[in-house]
Amino acid sequence: MAAPLDKHQRLRNALLGLPVDRPPVWLMRQAGRYMPVYRAIREKVSFLELCADAQLCAEVTCQPIDAFDLDAAIVFSDILTVPAAMGQGLTFGTGHGPQLNPVVRTADDLATLRHPDVGTALRPAHDAIRAFRALRPEVPILGFAGSPWTLLCYMVEGQGSKDFAAAKRLLWEAPDVARALLDRLADVVGEHLQAQAEAGAAAVQLFDTWAGVLAPEEARAFALPAAARALDHVRGVPRIYFAKAGGDLLPWLGETGADAQGLDWKVDIRRARKVLGGTPVQGNLDPLLLFAPPEVLTARVHDVLRAAGPLGHVFNLGHGIHRHTPEAAVTTLVQAVRSFVPEAAA
Amino acid sequence: MAAPLDKHQRLRNALLGLPVDRPPVWLMRQAGRYMPVYRAIREKVSFLELCADAQLCAEVTCQPIDAFDLDAAIVFSDILTVPAAMGQGLTFGTGHGPQLNPVVRTADDLATLRHPDVGTALRPAHDAIRAFRALRPEVPILGFAGSPWTLLCYMVEGQGSKDFAAAKRLLWEAPDVARALLDRLADVVGEHLQAQAEAGAAAVQLFDTWAGVLAPEEARAFALPAAARALDHVRGVPRIYFAKAGGDLLPWLGETGADAQGLDWKVDIRRARKVLGGTPVQGNLDPLLLFAPPEVLTARVHDVLRAAGPLGHVFNLGHGIHRHTPEAAVTTLVQAVRSFVPEAAA
Repeated sequence: MAAPLDKHQRLRNALLGLPVDRPPVWLMRQAGRYMPVYRAIREKVSFLELCADAQLCAEVTCQPIDAFDLDAAIVFSDILTVPAAMGQGLTFGTGHGPQLNPVVRTADDLATLRHPDVGTALRPAHDAIRAFRALRPEVPILGFAGSPWTLLCYMVEGQGSKDFAAAKRLLWEAPDVARALLDRLADVVGEHLQAQAEAGAAAVQLFDTWAGVLAPEEARAFALPAAARALDHVRGVPRIYFAKAGGDLLPWLGETGADAQGLDWKVDIRRARKVLGGTPVQGNLDPLLLFAPPEVLTARVHDVLRAAGPLGHVFNLGHGIHRHTPEAAVTTLVQAVRSFVPEAAA
Repeated sequence: MAAPLDKHQRLRNALLGLPVDRPPVWLMRQAGRYMPVYRAIREKVSFLELCADAQLCAEVTCQPIDAFDLDAAIVFSDILTVPAAMGQGLTFGTGHGPQLNPVVRTADDLATLRHPDVGTALRPAHDAIRAFRALRPEVPILGFAGSPWTLLCYMVEGQGSKDFAAAKRLLWEAPDVARALLDRLADVVGEHLQAQAEAGAAAVQLFDTWAGVLAPEEARAFALPAAARALDHVRGVPRIYFAKAGGDLLPWLGETGADAQGLDWKVDIRRARKVLGGTPVQGNLDPLLLFAPPEVLTARVHDVLRAAGPLGHVFNLGHGIHRHTPEAAVTTLVQAVRSFVPEAAA
């Protein structure tokens, strides 16, 4: 066991595969509706108002850090701020998910989109990172963005979808339009990630929520190259790629050039480590285990830590935390990560 | 290339890894709403009325055979006839999916379920197989059932779910109740499959639609053993296991004891064949490719055939056919399977 590290060193070392005193732990969507302190803020402002208010974003970002002493924060923001910055109308209605209007499906639609000045159009996230660093300098904060493919899905469909039929059809019927949109998104996303790094993010994560709806052929032809193009804009901080339901893509995830790979809960982490070679991983507890009895939760946290091994692992969930998660379970989870004692090597 | 085979021989040989003249082709959910002839029948009877009418089921089962000259039929039925036969109330409302009432979540709930006389309670499917064989003796017909885990999901949730939180919690909070329910389901499902085999089904398929929501630990502890128990009831015909989103489970699918494994479209078929050894596979074209231009569809059908190799492969989609699929695309798909010429071995 290495000497105690501060949180900045712990996260950085884990993401680079260097020795750590213990794996760092943070949770995807850790600032959110399961916390009463978050819901209290959301009673006063809408989701989009919150995303536009850097100081409030920083405050919300602090909430799970203060409640659970997590090893890293992730800036409070939303992936759909990018299409909005490019000129697509974004609304969050009550009772349904986000809506983007009008949909983008043709070269003409594409021509209506602008390449925004990222430092202006997406500034709240950058300022929130700066504000968080002033508030909690001892805690590293991650920046993030949605991947080009995942953003394309929303922009083409106009909303979430069961099967993303329109997005996939674009790949087959108009691959040139799809590629042009992915390229434009990759550059905006990449600049946005780099701006977050420059604002002080200790690492950045690219969320490819819908990579897993694609067969490997389309993933390799469209999603992974676009992710690589986005990540290539980022200099000086570790870059994490998270392909939800991406277990079938393991052999090709390296094509993104990411420094670390996020794994969802369905991936066997031992298999992942074998296929990914020395690439650090992040994950991958089933978020629903936070509803299990504490002893089951603790045992499964330890299973993940054992399977991942001591080097190059950031403990996390395999997907965002569920909105009805009891806060006590998060405390149990964090304690389980801290209390884990690896067996002596065989 | 082997001598021409009849359809019975072609399907059987493919499912047993024996030489075929060409891979057989059928499509999951091939009798259904994308066909106007099916919709015409559904204008006269409800879904559950249809499922209860063996002669009408046989007629519907013939529709895609007659339209597309597929190499196998699959009996028209529904997986939720099993919970209904065990005493849970089943309704299909308009505008939403199936509903099961009351939900089953405790030992007391479990005690209210009966072990039905399968030959009586699930007879329409068996009679439909007999009727189909009289109508189209030259075409093999598959029987099927939902897997114990997938049925447990519906029975515990009472309906479909985004994350099957209640079903998973049962595994963690009351594993004994979960196992007892899975065992009971496995026996009913197994008897139902065996009754279909005895009615003349040439093969049977166990649909594990929700296996893919589980981490490998839960899949191995609950879903796969229950599937094995169900399949163990079946004698004399090949047994296919289809775990949707099951690519992460490939190393353990053999624990089901199935003769062949169905693959969804996200699985790289070359990797699957490597991991599964000599086990025959079925799949795995993305159903949305039926919306792609014909030349793209044909090329991707040929990709699947090339990747699968000539032995031990039943061509199919990686999931049920989409309800808005154009019939002309199905014709193109079948033609593409028939026209495929394997390259000479390297």
